Parts: sequence; C-alpha cells; structure tokens
Amino acid sequence: MAASRRSKRPPHIQQVAANGLLDRRALISTGLLFAGAASTSSVAGAASAAAEPLANDPWSLTVGAPIPPYSTPSRFESKVAHLIAPNNGIGTGQARTPHHLLDGMITPNGVHFVVARSGAPNIDPDAHRLLIHGLVKQPLIFSLNDLMRYPTESNTRFVECGGNSAPMWSKEPLQANVQALHGLLSCSEWTGIRVSTLLDEAGVDPRATWAIAEGADGVTMQRSIPLAKLMDDAMIVFYQNGERIMPWNGYPMRLLLPGYEGNMNVKWLRRLKLTDAPAMAINESRQYTLLLDSGKAWRFYYPMEVKSFITRPSPTMTMPLPGYYEISGIAWSGHGRIAKVEVSADGGKSWALAALQAPVLPKALTRFRMPWNWGGQPAIVMSRATDEAGNVQPTRQKLIAERGQPRGTPNVNAFPMNHVNAISSWAIAANGAVTHVYV
Amino acid sequence: MAASRRSKRPPHIQQVAANGLLDRRALISTGLLFAGAASTSSVAGAASAAAEPLANDPWSLTVGAPIPPYSTPSRFESKVAHLIAPNNGIGTGQARTPHHLLDGMITPNGVHFVVARSGAPNIDPDAHRLLIHGLVKQPLIFSLNDLMRYPTESNTRFVECGGNSAPMWSKEPLQANVQALHGLLSCSEWTGIRVSTLLDEAGVDPRATWAIAEGADGVTMQRSIPLAKLMDDAMIVFYQNGERIMPWNGYPMRLLLPGYEGNMNVKWLRRLKLTDAPAMAINESRQYTLLLDSGKAWRFYYPMEVKSFITRPSPTMTMPLPGYYEISGIAWSGHGRIAKVEVSADGGKSWALAALQAPVLPKALTRFRMPWNWGGQPAIVMSRATDEAGNVQPTRQKLIAERGQPRGTPNVNAFPMNHVNAISSWAIAANGAVTHVYV
Repeated sequence: MAASRRSKRPPHIQQVAANGLLDRRALISTGLLFAGAASTSSVAGAASAAAEPLANDPWSLTVGAPIPPYSTPSRFESKVAHLIAPNNGIGTGQARTPHHLLDGMITPNGVHFVVARSGAPNIDPDAHRLLIHGLVKQPLIFSLNDLMRYPTESNTRFVECGGNSAPMWSKEPLQANVQALHGLLSCSEWTGIRVSTLLDEAGVDPRATWAIAEGADGVTMQRSIPLAKLMDDAMIVFYQNGERIMPWNGYPMRLLLPGYEGNMNVKWLRRLKLTDAPAMAINESRQYTLLLDSGKAWRFYYPMEVKSFITRPSPTMTMPLPGYYEISGIAWSGHGRIAKVEVSADGGKSWALAALQAPVLPKALTRFRMPWNWGGQPAIVMSRATDEAGNVQPTRQKLIAERGQPRGTPNVNAFPMNHVNAISSWAIAANGAVTHVYV
Repeated sequence: MAASRRSKRPPHIQQVAANGLLDRRALISTGLLFAGAASTSSVAGAASAAAEPLANDPWSLTVGAPIPPYSTPSRFESKVAHLIAPNNGIGTGQARTPHHLLDGMITPNGVHFVVARSGAPNIDPDAHRLLIHGLVKQPLIFSLNDLMRYPTESNTRFVECGGNSAPMWSKEPLQANVQALHGLLSCSEWTGIRVSTLLDEAGVDPRATWAIAEGADGVTMQRSIPLAKLMDDAMIVFYQNGERIMPWNGYPMRLLLPGYEGNMNVKWLRRLKLTDAPAMAINESRQYTLLLDSGKAWRFYYPMEVKSFITRPSPTMTMPLPGYYEISGIAWSGHGRIAKVEVSADGGKSWALAALQAPVLPKALTRFRMPWNWGGQPAIVMSRATDEAGNVQPTRQKLIAERGQPRGTPNVNAFPMNHVNAISSWAIAANGAVTHVYV
C-alpha cells in the first residue's frame, strides 16, 4: 500500500535531502499542496471506512466528569510529568521537562523544569519584600503590591539550566529520552516589570558595575549579575503563562535574564545589592564555571548558545511503519532569534531547511518541522540551528576540540560539563527503533 | 508625598487624555523615560530603606517543598480558579476564567473556560476514532496516532463562548468581577493539523457545502460548519499550551475554528460528516440564534466581534491611594488582529491610545496597557478596540438600538443575548472602590 500510494506522488513534493526529506514548503503552502504530501505518503491507518457513524464508545453513553476548580490533565497523560533526580527537598533537586511528549513553543506550567537547592520556600506574598540597596542613591523596599503598580510587559522567553544537555558530554551516548538528555529547558510567557525601572528610581551610583541577586530560599541563593544586563532586558516577573509563577519557579517573584544561564535567573528574589565587584558565590566560582581539560576555566560565561534537538522521533520511541512522518523539534539561542534550522536524515551528509513556526521570537523556543517520507531503511536524523547573530550549532567533535576529552559516564545526574550545545543525533533502525548515537 | 513627587514630573510624561491618562510611549520607550514615569508618579510603598539586608523570613530558614511530578500553584493563589455555574455534571456546566487575576496573553490550562453539556467524557485516546464521511469520495477513519503523523502547526488563538458577556445585557449593571462578566473567554497556543489536509485526502464531493461536527460527549454535541471555514483555517488540535488538551477542553482532540463562537469548536471530536445542508441542531437553531426584539432572528452568525475590557482596575477591586497605576486589559477580534485600543478615564469624553503588547497575533488575545496617574477624583475607565478589518467595538446603546431593549435581570447565569461586544465601563470612586456602571 505504501508503494502504490507513493507512485501517485505529485512532482511538487520534492525530496530535498537524502533519505526522504521533503521540501518544507509542503508544510506552509496551500491546502492542495499540503494534502498532496499527506495523501501520497501512505500515512498508515487512514483506512477506508463505512459511511455509517461510529458505534458509541462507553464514555459517550454516560455523564462525564464535573468541571474542577483548577483543571488537570487526563489520567491517560500521567507520563507528562517531571523527571525528578537525584535528590528532592534536602540537597539539589532537578525536575526535567518531558519535551518528547509536548508540542508547540509554550511549556505548560505543570512541567516547567526546576533546579532547586532546598525545595520551594512557602512564601506568603503579602509578607515578602524586595530590597534594592548597596551602591544606590536611595535604597528602596517594595511589597508585591507596590511592584505591581509599575509598568509591566510580557515576553515569551526560554530559561535553560547551564547544565542542560550535560549527558551529551559522557563518553558513550546515554540511552535515554530527550527529557533526560535536554529537559532542563522550558519556555513561558513571563509578565513583570523591567529591573531598570526600579534601578532608575533608586538612582545607580556611578561606581556600581555588578549587582548581587539573592533568593529567599533556604540556601539563600546568590548570583552576581553585570549591571549592564540589569539595565538592558532584565525583568522581575510575577506571572508565568498568565497565572502567578509556580512555587518551584520562584513564587511570588523571580529575576528573568533573557538568554542567560538559568541559575542566574534568581528565584524567590528578595534583594538586589549593587556593588563594584562580583560576590564570587559558590554557584559562579565553582558550579557554573567551565573547567577545561587544559586546566583553564571559563568564568562568567552567561549566554546559552544556539541549540536545537529533534523531539519526534527521538530516543526510546519506535516508528511503527515506513511512510510519511513529520520531524518536529525545538531550537533556541540566548543571542536572539533563530534564523534557520537544517535537518539531516543521513547522519549529516546532506541537509535541508526546516519550516519554522511563526512567530519566531527572540530568546524563545522556536518549533521547527520537516516533512519526511521514511523509506524503512536505517537513518540518522539530526538538526542544526543558526541564530540571527550568525552562530551555528557546533558538532560534538568541535566542542571536544575546544574543551578537552569527555570524562563523564552515561548518567543523567552527572554534570561533567556546562553549556553543552552540540548537535544531537538519533538513529532509526530498520525496525523503527530510535536510539541515541554519536556521529 | 504624591504631590511633591508629581512636581518633579519631566515634561515628556504628558497627559494625553482627561483624568490623568499618560502617553503610552512611557511604556515602550527607553529605560530613562520609563523610569521617569515611575519615579515621578508616587508609586506608594517604594519606601526608603536601610542599607542592611532584610531579616530572614521563616520560609528562608528551612528546607522548602520537594518538586512534585506536576506543579500546581501556591496555596496563596486558590482564588485563581474557575467560577463554576450553574450546574456541573448533569446539565450544562460553565466554568469562567479569572481574568482579573491573570496577566499576559496566554490563559493557563488550569483555568481555561469550559462550557460542557454533560461533563468531560473519560476518553481512552487509543480507542478514540475520528470518522470523515458523508459527501466525500472515500470515507476515512483515523486513530490519534494516525493523525499525529500529518503536518502540524501551532497557532495562538482565543476561544470565546457565544454567550460570553451576556450579563452586560441585563437592565442594571451586574456588580461582579470580570470573571463573572467576561470569563467565558480564553487564549491558548493550540497545536494540531489542518482540517483541509484530511478533507483533501478524503476527496470532497462537489455537492458538499456543510459538515456536521460531532463530539463524543454524553449529549453528542453537534454543530454545522460551513465547508469554506473547514477548508480555510480550521484545525483539529491535540495540544494546548504545549501539553495535551485538558479533558474539559476536548481531550484527546477538538475542532478549532479560529474566531468563531466557542460552541462550534466541537470538543471530543469523533466525526465530520459532509452534507449539502446544515443539521439545524439545537445549538444552532435555538441556543446560538440571536433573537431580536423585532421578532427577527440572526441565525448562523459565527465570528466573535471585536471586543475588549479592562482587567485592572476592574469591579470588586479597590485602588488603595492616588498616584501612578497601570491600566491593563485584553482585546480580541474574530476578524483578525487588533489594530488599536483606546482608553478613556472620563467616561468616554476623551480617549487616548493604549500600548499593545507584541506580538499582536490574529484572532488571539492582545494585552493593552496604559499608564495612569490617578489624582484621587472619581473616574470612569473604559476601553474601545478596533480590529484590522476596521470594526470598532460599539457602545452598549448602539447594540441596544440594533437589537432591542435589554430584558435580562442581573444574573451571571442568564443568557438573555449572545454576541454581546459592547464597551465595558468601570467607575472608580474617590475612596478607590471600583464598580460596574452603564454610561
């Protein structure tokens, strides 16, 4: 059936790279062209049917569930949940976003990633205060209600842990899904106020070059932020995808530093102290310093670099039959908008442009899609993103050449390297099984 | 303190309409101008502070809450919940979105509005099927997994019940918050496939002009959809803000007809039957027909017209003190993008342009914002939206002239009129109390 249908393929459904990658314009063109891609590509199961209505399923014969005060997902979606490791509560807890089960650009608040060093403090928003002090003309203290009278804005931005994708630094490819490999990454519409508004009101002392941001959590998280970033696009945010921030994401307020590594986006923010030097806090002098094989270290290395990965198909999935599929994934850059994403189905020998879902927003996840007619032969799919600043996502070999040999073991909890933005490669076997490979 | 600060207001913070409305460019300009607006406008509570750090609150002295598999809001946000009325389960249940407590463009999935005639069916997604039949060359039947291999797209679109804002048709203004008045409205990033893709594959019989969409809920919801809409921008969607659709919003799949009244966006979709005439189902021949005073009725009246309302300040709130505030609200149109929103603080005598939050997307909620220096005198705030097709949100008097006298009583559960898109007016008393008024 696949073969007979394929023979009807109209000439405008062109293969644009090896192993069945089709022209992305099939996705963004007219209905007719669009449908051509589908009807000639043997989507399995679109079976002929009788002209009669379907028989009633049991759930159509009864009264359904009443509406709850706050909706939660279907009981059939229990896998759409955080992957939590290694500790939780005392010590550092990590919770990863299940990107293999999501689609679109927005990460639902229920599964936004979390790294928390001592859990989520149970903050009473009416009692919480934000202090701005240090090298300012006039220290200021704010309640949440005070802050919410200032001019607000909404921006859809990703937040990514500096340690995301660290499993890619292990010597052998970790056989795990994209949640385990790349799940310390999420994207939300954040609403709040510009930090610069408050600093202008406090009056910045000309000697100030840094600010120490401090959280109200049990470990009193501290990070040093360059003043220039705070005066640029930094925000103090109260809302995440329309509702107040989740307790684990910083309720009632967090710092948002668009494009900078997640740990700097201090949650449960309680003060900004302007200074003339960084604090050299543990999370900047040790945890988020990149230690290279050469013995050198990269310190104060903030923007998350251009990156992408394919979410569907991805490791631990199986492709049931040859035929038409859509390759879908996400791309992002701490340097601005995604300019293009290229996809390969032959392990990087040939590449073709993927379609980007509009709107393409700066420092936000961008969904890419690529039509694919999988012939049933072994294939290796990869994606390579380029941002508007011209940065191209590197191969793993290029990163290794820059930083030194991988020294990690395949372990989702190990953080042998930060800021790993190498291209990911997924192998599809003839039986449809998808695995993680290094090419 | 308010007066002494106000005297320092720089000349570029211009009043642009009566009763203290400021130039919207204060919101979108440089940090300096931005800060000027704030620092000269006596935001109460931005009090001087000592240079010493804050004392530790109790939640900073202990280990916080461990990360759950699926995050839920803070216990201090229990008001961010559906307003549920009148019945729930057997009979029609309605759940309204708490827009007075939200900000941004996205409605979080937990509080997306719901109208359900028999609750949410407990559908097993693996057993659910979609049938396309009737006036087609080849009837087709699909599983969810079949459908998910087709080309997908993501679009941020509002869904609004045809009966939203019906309380505005009562003779006296209902004293209730915007959740009760306008809460049958939400906005999500929806991901799924074009209906036209499937219809092209089935092959549309030239005699077909309509399709009957049918849900798998207990009442077997049916609506007739013009074929032209299905071949235009109609989608079958599986994801809502990244995750699978909530059970009450149509899990595992619903029809999305961007801009058309909510009831037509059939949830739990199980078939599309192409026909040459509408079904005259109860929800089109009775419930969603507009019965006018003249005895005439508007049938098959689909697009939700241009509309807006102010969410902050809004009825049941109190403004604590005179000084700087931000007026914030949402605007939308079933005919495309919002072109502009004007705001008045003097009951409609003078108007000024509000700032629109980018990106302004077609048939999506658009957040507007307006800086306001409230002098403490009584005021009436209103918003008036215009869409890119040139439609202007009408006054209530204009709608009444067109349709006949209001005949409803102030009751959140009455539906005396559908498609009510009149301008809303909120009165602010000298003591800061906000009430609903007709002007």
